[in-house]
Amino acid sequence: MGSKSDLHVMQDAADVLKELGVAYEITVVSAHRTPDRMFSYARAAADRGLKVIIAGAGGAAHLPGMVASLTHLPVIGVPVKSSNSIDGWDSVLSILQMPNGIPVATVALNAAKNAGILAAQIISTADEYVVQNLIKFKEDLKEKVEASAKEMEGGA
Amino acid sequence: MGSKSDLHVMQDAADVLKELGVAYEITVVSAHRTPDRMFSYARAAADRGLKVIIAGAGGAAHLPGMVASLTHLPVIGVPVKSSNSIDGWDSVLSILQMPNGIPVATVALNAAKNAGILAAQIISTADEYVVQNLIKFKEDLKEKVEASAKEMEGGA
Amino acid sequence: MGSKSDLHVMQDAADVLKELGVAYEITVVSAHRTPDRMFSYARAAADRGLKVIIAGAGGAAHLPGMVASLTHLPVIGVPVKSSNSIDGWDSVLSILQMPNGIPVATVALNAAKNAGILAAQIISTADEYVVQNLIKFKEDLKEKVEASAKEMEGGA
Amino acid sequence: MGSKSDLHVMQDAADVLKELGVAYEITVVSAHRTPDRMFSYARAAADRGLKVIIAGAGGAAHLPGMVASLTHLPVIGVPVKSSNSIDGWDSVLSILQMPNGIPVATVALNAAKNAGILAAQIISTADEYVVQNLIKFKEDLKEKVEASAKEMEGGA
Amino acid sequence: MGSKSDLHVMQDAADVLKELGVAYEITVVSAHRTPDRMFSYARAAADRGLKVIIAGAGGAAHLPGMVASLTHLPVIGVPVKSSNSIDGWDSVLSILQMPNGIPVATVALNAAKNAGILAAQIISTADEYVVQNLIKFKEDLKEKVEASAKEMEGGA
Amino acid sequence: MGSKSDLHVMQDAADVLKELGVAYEITVVSAHRTPDRMFSYARAAADRGLKVIIAGAGGAAHLPGMVASLTHLPVIGVPVKSSNSIDGWDSVLSILQMPNGIPVATVALNAAKNAGILAAQIISTADEYVVQNLIKFKEDLKEKVEASAKEMEGGA
Amino acid sequence: MGSKSDLHVMQDAADVLKELGVAYEITVVSAHRTPDRMFSYARAAADRGLKVIIAGAGGAAHLPGMVASLTHLPVIGVPVKSSNSIDGWDSVLSILQMPNGIPVATVALNAAKNAGILAAQIISTADEYVVQNLIKFKEDLKEKVEASAKEMEGGA
Amino acid sequence: MGSKSDLHVMQDAADVLKELGVAYEITVVSAHRTPDRMFSYARAAADRGLKVIIAGAGGAAHLPGMVASLTHLPVIGVPVKSSNSIDGWDSVLSILQMPNGIPVATVALNAAKNAGILAAQIISTADEYVVQNLIKFKEDLKEKVEASAKEMEGGA
Repeated sequence: MGSKSDLHVMQDAADVLKELGVAYEITVVSAHRTPDRMFSYARAAADRGLKVIIAGAGGAAHLPGMVASLTHLPVIGVPVKSSNSIDGWDSVLSILQMPNGIPVATVALNAAKNAGILAAQIISTADEYVVQNLIKFKEDLKEKVEASAKEMEGGA
Repeated sequence: MGSKSDLHVMQDAADVLKELGVAYEITVVSAHRTPDRMFSYARAAADRGLKVIIAGAGGAAHLPGMVASLTHLPVIGVPVKSSNSIDGWDSVLSILQMPNGIPVATVALNAAKNAGILAAQIISTADEYVVQNLIKFKEDLKEKVEASAKEMEGGA
Repeated sequence: MGSKSDLHVMQDAADVLKELGVAYEITVVSAHRTPDRMFSYARAAADRGLKVIIAGAGGAAHLPGMVASLTHLPVIGVPVKSSNSIDGWDSVLSILQMPNGIPVATVALNAAKNAGILAAQIISTADEYVVQNLIKFKEDLKEKVEASAKEMEGGA
Repeated sequence: MGSKSDLHVMQDAADVLKELGVAYEITVVSAHRTPDRMFSYARAAADRGLKVIIAGAGGAAHLPGMVASLTHLPVIGVPVKSSNSIDGWDSVLSILQMPNGIPVATVALNAAKNAGILAAQIISTADEYVVQNLIKFKEDLKEKVEASAKEMEGGA
Repeated sequence: MGSKSDLHVMQDAADVLKELGVAYEITVVSAHRTPDRMFSYARAAADRGLKVIIAGAGGAAHLPGMVASLTHLPVIGVPVKSSNSIDGWDSVLSILQMPNGIPVATVALNAAKNAGILAAQIISTADEYVVQNLIKFKEDLKEKVEASAKEMEGGA
Repeated sequence: MGSKSDLHVMQDAADVLKELGVAYEITVVSAHRTPDRMFSYARAAADRGLKVIIAGAGGAAHLPGMVASLTHLPVIGVPVKSSNSIDGWDSVLSILQMPNGIPVATVALNAAKNAGILAAQIISTADEYVVQNLIKFKEDLKEKVEASAKEMEGGA
Repeated sequence: MGSKSDLHVMQDAADVLKELGVAYEITVVSAHRTPDRMFSYARAAADRGLKVIIAGAGGAAHLPGMVASLTHLPVIGVPVKSSNSIDGWDSVLSILQMPNGIPVATVALNAAKNAGILAAQIISTADEYVVQNLIKFKEDLKEKVEASAKEMEGGA
Repeated sequence: MGSKSDLHVMQDAADVLKELGVAYEITVVSAHRTPDRMFSYARAAADRGLKVIIAGAGGAAHLPGMVASLTHLPVIGVPVKSSNSIDGWDSVLSILQMPNGIPVATVALNAAKNAGILAAQIISTADEYVVQNLIKFKEDLKEKVEASAKEMEGGA
């Protein structure tokens, strides 16, 4: 993530990765305040054995796109709605609208949880254990809705 | 893709997948006009051996999100700027702003090429051959810019 | 509705339908978390004797459009401003901008009350009792404004 | 429709109503230039036997909402992207964002065809003949997509 | 104004008109809930001796434009940011984007005070007493800023 | 107007003022390129006998607001959609969103014709001849719509 | 700044200028309420020895652009999100979208701190002392991020 | 500039710098395709004697902000409206909304000419020759407007 202040959003990614059985590390790398650190982190990522990078940032959010320019790994971008953001549009467009050649897999505003799930889906393309966890996760979502429906129909 | 009229945009995904050495299939599945076909296509995808799905659609673009709801595979969404679109905002927001639990890896407006590259990056997490192709692809991008720079500096 | 958390908005639809003398049922069906349930609910609706479906959802709101794709009944969509919505634009555009062939009758952001009234108007095209209720409802709206006006003119 | 210049958009509504076997009339009524005519048209509509009104207008589009205020019939609004429109946002918001009590069933920008289908769906709630036409119409949509799919899969 | 709930905004217009020595009346007229009352109010306004009409409304705000269609008096529109407004864009565009032939003099979001000043400026084109009040009003604005400046420069 | 390039838009104001029997002058005054000229023009306007000022400008359009700050006359602002405008939003917001104390009577994007009509309405508050012209103008608008309606109903 | 109410935002510019060793003055000048004061302030600025002007304003923010029209000094504009602003878009576009010939160096919404740093960067082009302060400032930013990273990695 | 395709926009900066007597160099540096080149270019800029950097880019435009993170020189950003841009909003927000600590002096969409003038203004803070050129440039702008005014007043 680009700043410690993004932790309240980005923690969701860590939590869901744990739930889905995917190992992860979490740190702060700022594109604008620590460009060298970003360079060395992104350049070394593949060799260190990382498979996917999730980068969250707000405002003119350059971290996801710059990391994507520095590695061939898939990069997932989380637009964070920071305090002086213009309703989140700045983060969304800075991450989404990457030029041809350098994609960032963008998820919804503040949707760190979905970034974690997407990372697990990517890992699962070669990991049957994670596939099973994802199937179970989807099943749980369904059951919660069905319980709501039963409760509401009973109560209506 | 949701409609044959999206082919002029979505062809770029096919082309770059070919260039990066990733096998693919291409077809038309409409969320709104052929919901049953979408259901059976998305539900069968993992068992048929597909690893990633790229879904492109315009306007109130429900195809990527609905496919994501029907499979545990990673789904990449391409917002297509269709003729009566409100400047593309409708496609972008319909694909990007998925609720927690069901991510869609969204790329830029009309950026089917980036969708293809992202799919290859996902495949490459377990395929060294595609890694090499991606590294070469990035190298080519760099060389084209350096050639431009040389030409412009020579000519300025 | 797509989630129990939408109930605080969608309850208004139920209340006004009751007031206008139209029978209704209310439940939770999620396009993304329970796609099978959505399929069977929407496909069965006409045969079960439903005349109109009101579907409310937030963010990338696919429920109204998907239900419309699965039935020939008129479908009314209520864009709900959910917590991580981008000011409601995502829900509005995801519901409104349906492609040719599959309309959704969209009402204002969070306007579940208007969805209920619209449903009653549709029922009233073949039900004189509901016509009379609608006429009375409009009369009441008028009288409240006239009372406000009298009060303000008296007080000014 | 609010102006003869909207005919190129609104004609689609007439065409699809014909195709679906629903009788209709078409005329020009301007909220701003002929308010009396709008009043008498909307007030008389129910007694003349009309069941649904489709109103299309651009810019600060008041026709659909004002007609809805003058009748208890369901009113469908078509936002038209007129020449000095701000990308269609003005028409969309002027029609969609009606206050509580007076709904307008809004369809997508320029989507007169969908307005016609929605009107037919409303009529069909009490007309089995139109139900059959709608079912056939949906079937045709599906077949066209399946033909596209077959062609594309054959050709790829 | 279109609803008593707009009074907290519209009161500013009344207050500044009083300060500038312009007589006024204030009432509630709803385009959508009391269309007949709006018709008779707007049609009678010129003959009753009114010189300018200020109309404030929120959401799909049709009151200013409809009043303008019913009188040759200048009409000033105040977009009110109501509770379910999409950030005020709906009110602004519904009032501002009037078609050729029927202008509404639109002021800023919630700017009822400016509507009052503008009305006074219109009256002042034939009333020297109001001219003097406006000149004094502008002088006061200037003096307040100059006092702020002095205070800040002293304190810096 | 702020630039000669705005003439194709602003000419409509001159034409309709002529049609409505209101004397006018037309010139170029740029807030940013000729600030002194703007100052002396706006400051002298009332003493020269002008009653209303119409100011049209594009982009960051400061002319209408600055003129309003320099005179007590009513100022009408026309947002012009210039070539590098962001869809006209910049002109609209720069003119509309004036702070309390300094109103600008804003009309629709490129709506110089409406600016002219509004100026005539302001003049008409003390000029019966212009009142009659405005009434006739409204009558003509109505007749054109009624002719369209007759033609269309005949042709349908 | 355009109003004393902008002080809570603009103070950040003063604070960072002090930190970076750049002398400054701070005052209130309103484009709309004190146009003469703005004229004389901006016209005199270069001769008084000022090197850069920072102008902050909200809504239809004309101060930065008008100051830029009155001096050849570089002018930095700070869009302030004022209370009735439309999400800050009005201030941003009124300051940013200046016509060719009269640039304003615009910074992010409410980013007075960045305006101060930019001013220092401009001064530093001819002042080695400020260069050293800027280099130290950047170093501090980096160290804070690295400390966050260490803390987070330790705690993860 | 980020890509040779931006040259048709960015050439204006070069032209006006020449006109104002400021030496410049022009080249292509892509944040996303040549990150190393961007790093070494930006890091070396101050020592090579550059005083200001103008960076133009489109879409998710990271070049200006990343260059600003890598140097203490003032950086001017030009948002370029590229082909798949969402009306230029992406470029504008990606460049403008920089976080605290790393300003980019942003100019209007496609306003490379203004970027050149702003660069000259920055240089002029320590170069009397450029001051004189800027004063002459402003004088020329004024004279062109006055000539337009004379022509229009004569012709009206």
